[in-house]
Amino acid sequence: MKVLILGGAGMIGRKLAQRLASDGALSGKAIAKLTLHDVVPPVAPAGARMPISLATGDLPAPGEAERLIAERPHVVFHLAAIVSGEAEQDFDKGYRINLDGTRCLLEAIRKAGYKPRLVFASSIAVFGAPFPDAIGDEFFATPLTSYGTQKSIGELLVSDYSRKGFVDGISMRLPTICIRPGAPNKAASGFFSNIMREPLAGKEALLPVSESVMHWHASPRAAVGFMLHAAALDLARLGWRRALTMPGLAVTVGEQIAALRKVAGDAVAARIRRVPDAFVEAIVAGWPRAFAPRRALELGFRADSSFEEIIRIHIEDELGGAIA
Amino acid sequence: MKVLILGGAGMIGRKLAQRLASDGALSGKAIAKLTLHDVVPPVAPAGARMPISLATGDLPAPGEAERLIAERPHVVFHLAAIVSGEAEQDFDKGYRINLDGTRCLLEAIRKAGYKPRLVFASSIAVFGAPFPDAIGDEFFATPLTSYGTQKSIGELLVSDYSRKGFVDGISMRLPTICIRPGAPNKAASGFFSNIMREPLAGKEALLPVSESVMHWHASPRAAVGFMLHAAALDLARLGWRRALTMPGLAVTVGEQIAALRKVAGDAVAARIRRVPDAFVEAIVAGWPRAFAPRRALELGFRADSSFEEIIRIHIEDELGGAIA
Repeated sequence: MKVLILGGAGMIGRKLAQRLASDGALSGKAIAKLTLHDVVPPVAPAGARMPISLATGDLPAPGEAERLIAERPHVVFHLAAIVSGEAEQDFDKGYRINLDGTRCLLEAIRKAGYKPRLVFASSIAVFGAPFPDAIGDEFFATPLTSYGTQKSIGELLVSDYSRKGFVDGISMRLPTICIRPGAPNKAASGFFSNIMREPLAGKEALLPVSESVMHWHASPRAAVGFMLHAAALDLARLGWRRALTMPGLAVTVGEQIAALRKVAGDAVAARIRRVPDAFVEAIVAGWPRAFAPRRALELGFRADSSFEEIIRIHIEDELGGAIA
Repeated sequence: MKVLILGGAGMIGRKLAQRLASDGALSGKAIAKLTLHDVVPPVAPAGARMPISLATGDLPAPGEAERLIAERPHVVFHLAAIVSGEAEQDFDKGYRINLDGTRCLLEAIRKAGYKPRLVFASSIAVFGAPFPDAIGDEFFATPLTSYGTQKSIGELLVSDYSRKGFVDGISMRLPTICIRPGAPNKAASGFFSNIMREPLAGKEALLPVSESVMHWHASPRAAVGFMLHAAALDLARLGWRRALTMPGLAVTVGEQIAALRKVAGDAVAARIRRVPDAFVEAIVAGWPRAFAPRRALELGFRADSSFEEIIRIHIEDELGGAIA
């Protein structure tokens, strides 16, 4: 089978590629070729057991999606997106990549006249406050960002193209990915990862909100697990409701810190410095805290078992097992 | 104030134009000019108290929306759409008019750099079975037609462009319009109107479903009332949740027939011939039966008071007060 990852240079794209390269198979079938595409040059995963093709280009540019689909990949992971903050700042760019790009992909598939599996990475940003304490599967999408709007539109398109028989698609609303590797970023949500990653690396981290703030998390490893499960699932079980909220862990910042103390000790947890920031606190107050993702659980999607596990995954996958 | 009606040759567009032409004002302000636009030539309303401009063109064609917005209408009623059946049969045409057309309009407004009131006609087709007996305001949109998908996307765009300050928009999910004037059409929902309109005109009508079938109705006059109310409302009261399910009447076919008998007599009601059609019955089983449109009611939108009123409105507005 041939596999295409759009957004193959991104954090999840790279981890998914590495996993597929190591496994050598997807849904029980050997991968004959793995293509990574992104707007910046993707990097081939180490130790791949199959040919890797690296492609750089602009998804909504004329002919780009057609070229990628011409190889008739059996599974397409569509992770390419302008992230939330940038889509909010650059309205045209967000719509061009996140809406037009997705539509170009779907049209290319429709015109190619075959029906690949499409796994579309959506986001809990499709939801906008106010919401219940735990958001159920039938709660409406009222995004408060252009990014969330574009993801919600992508979900609708994936469902309609699936219903019409043009593609076999599923949209997965990913939790906030924690612990996000790499340097601290300026995203308002960055602190959820920063306060874990930086102390584990021997550095100080700033906590801008109170410890009572609750949020919905999944590890990068869990997110890759969702992708693999979505690629293998019999989507007829979903009917035409092809967008699913993925399971995650609803934990407070206080619980995150307690887990860090338990896994890495008091000295590491002491590297978190509390610097309340009313601006960040106000933004975060508008975010979902928890979900009741009954459908995804029934379909076999599995979250991390605890926040301690999320921390251990980071130590194993990013720090080679060692805490600073 | 200047008013633009897109879809001005359609059933609701014509009735809205006639009402505005007679009133001479909207939201308490005199209408200086009323423009009707459609892909087929619109007809000027009779007895207009202001200049009427008639325009024919293709909304998503390059420059079309810009030309219409160049006059800087204060209120834009966007009723232009490929209807459900046609959008399902002609996938490209449906997306071109219903999605691209709406986006072209929003982009033209954004680029013109002013903030008109936009009243977008959406539909209860954004909902797809299964659903609760009465669909609440926070129920999710999982359309089972491309038309419903396109309307749902339009709602998301109107909300996002409003949130960004590019337009002051509202999306209204209209109930099924009953009694629809004109010749019987082939729409699966046509019988709800046919079984009232044809007997009132002295003709026989076929009823393809059982009398227990319940559906959600509003008269054309009520729909025009929704439009006028939406044009005048302070939309800040909606926050960024700019899509509203309009109130309607949840009545069974049996209740429709009882109302017809009460208003027009046994002889008229006897013109309905029961010819069960399992195909139509199956389609209708997937449609919403009733809603709990709390938000719209709180905001002052008002449905017809009874199905008898709906019949009387038809007799007054379409039959000059006389029953055949």
